[in-house]
Amino acid sequence: MSDATAPQPRLRWRPGEAAEEGVRLLAEETPVALVHDGSTTAVMMATPADLEDFAVGFSLSERVIESADEIASLEVARSDLGVEVRLWLTPERTRDLAARRRRLAGPTGCGLCGVESLEEAARAPLRVADDGLRVSGQDLLTAMAQMEAAQALSRATRAVHAAGLWSRDGGPIVREDIGRHNALDKLIGAAVRQGTTRREVLLLTSRVSVEMVQKAAVLGAPVLCAVSAPTALAIRTAEAAGLTLVGVARSDGFEVFTNPQRLELG
Amino acid sequence: MSDATAPQPRLRWRPGEAAEEGVRLLAEETPVALVHDGSTTAVMMATPADLEDFAVGFSLSERVIESADEIASLEVARSDLGVEVRLWLTPERTRDLAARRRRLAGPTGCGLCGVESLEEAARAPLRVADDGLRVSGQDLLTAMAQMEAAQALSRATRAVHAAGLWSRDGGPIVREDIGRHNALDKLIGAAVRQGTTRREVLLLTSRVSVEMVQKAAVLGAPVLCAVSAPTALAIRTAEAAGLTLVGVARSDGFEVFTNPQRLELG
Repeated sequence: MSDATAPQPRLRWRPGEAAEEGVRLLAEETPVALVHDGSTTAVMMATPADLEDFAVGFSLSERVIESADEIASLEVARSDLGVEVRLWLTPERTRDLAARRRRLAGPTGCGLCGVESLEEAARAPLRVADDGLRVSGQDLLTAMAQMEAAQALSRATRAVHAAGLWSRDGGPIVREDIGRHNALDKLIGAAVRQGTTRREVLLLTSRVSVEMVQKAAVLGAPVLCAVSAPTALAIRTAEAAGLTLVGVARSDGFEVFTNPQRLELG
Repeated sequence: MSDATAPQPRLRWRPGEAAEEGVRLLAEETPVALVHDGSTTAVMMATPADLEDFAVGFSLSERVIESADEIASLEVARSDLGVEVRLWLTPERTRDLAARRRRLAGPTGCGLCGVESLEEAARAPLRVADDGLRVSGQDLLTAMAQMEAAQALSRATRAVHAAGLWSRDGGPIVREDIGRHNALDKLIGAAVRQGTTRREVLLLTSRVSVEMVQKAAVLGAPVLCAVSAPTALAIRTAEAAGLTLVGVARSDGFEVFTNPQRLELG
């Protein structure tokens, strides 16, 4: 965790009192370039931990690859400027990616027009399997409490998000990041790299915007349970994906927005 | 505000009680394509309000333009897919943008390599003017309270961020969005379009990551005051920009991380 946090001097002020010197432990943030076959797909500001997980999860959720098998090799290179994660893909995927990049670059080499871009953004989410999963309301409260206990970086800094994958026969896998999208991409990568087949409940400390639902469908967890509220578009997308969307989950209960049939709410 | 929120049916569950039907007002979220001279620069998921402000502020903070004078015309086009904001630039800026796009596209038309991308991400922030501004600790608490009173969308949904521009002789201009970066871009655009010259304190409901500091420097507000904590990189960037960075600002006080000389902490 040493890379992921930094102690920082600061003045603490309260009305009517003199300012007081002290130190606060802060979350670190590093530019991470995700480089596929020698070209950068994205530079993300991220917590510099679990970067292999991040690269695999990002590549899957952004559909650069369809399966982790398509990564031939992966290398993490650190420098003063930040971190490069270099992924080399299998020959077949390399050909597909080059074709997609040419298409996205557009005829003038400078990007899609507005309508094409909106069509690209509106792509349908994957559908989660209808596997007869049933979890109880108490299961969800237990899962959220277990994730909170595993959030080491959050406990140290109070300034990072977490994503967790929970199933009835195993405690959560948890990943943390200053960015909520990054935390979920790291979790997707961790689940794939660990070969986790039990994918039941995705736990999030954050709000649920549409990208979080799209990523949940990539992960294949039929139930998404988040501390904060979803957006209206996230709900429409959860309906299209067949996902059970639970929000405003606190220790005293939660709200269910889509597909309540997977929940036993006695 | 009707476009920006949507009522949503939901089940409310508490342990030991039967699930209860009801309705919650949620924040809406729409894909917004920002299109410069016919090519899309970015598609952002955003709250569909104040989109002219958003387009102008994004163009400035992403340095597509250096001044709002470089926008020859601006048009907002809504469709089922989302919103296109079409900006047409002045001839000189159009030439500069085309050259920059060719450079960013790289020799193969598919993007920069990793090191080039990290260099692009690490560009130095603008420096804020050293204009002798002095604000008191109580000023900051007052400003935060005034912004909270102006957060109409947040009060309705409890799920959006706000950015405000406050000065000692005028209440805050406030803009809201589901995304904290978007809220700040909207505020930058609003300040420019309203011709606001008094730019003293930037208020944020969010955490402070490095991009928020870079945008604060574009806005030209020498003091940034945020509800949550900064990252360590945000602090280094605030030092480089000459910005006073205040975080963890609650009704009972705050913490100062850089350049405390602008604050009177009696």
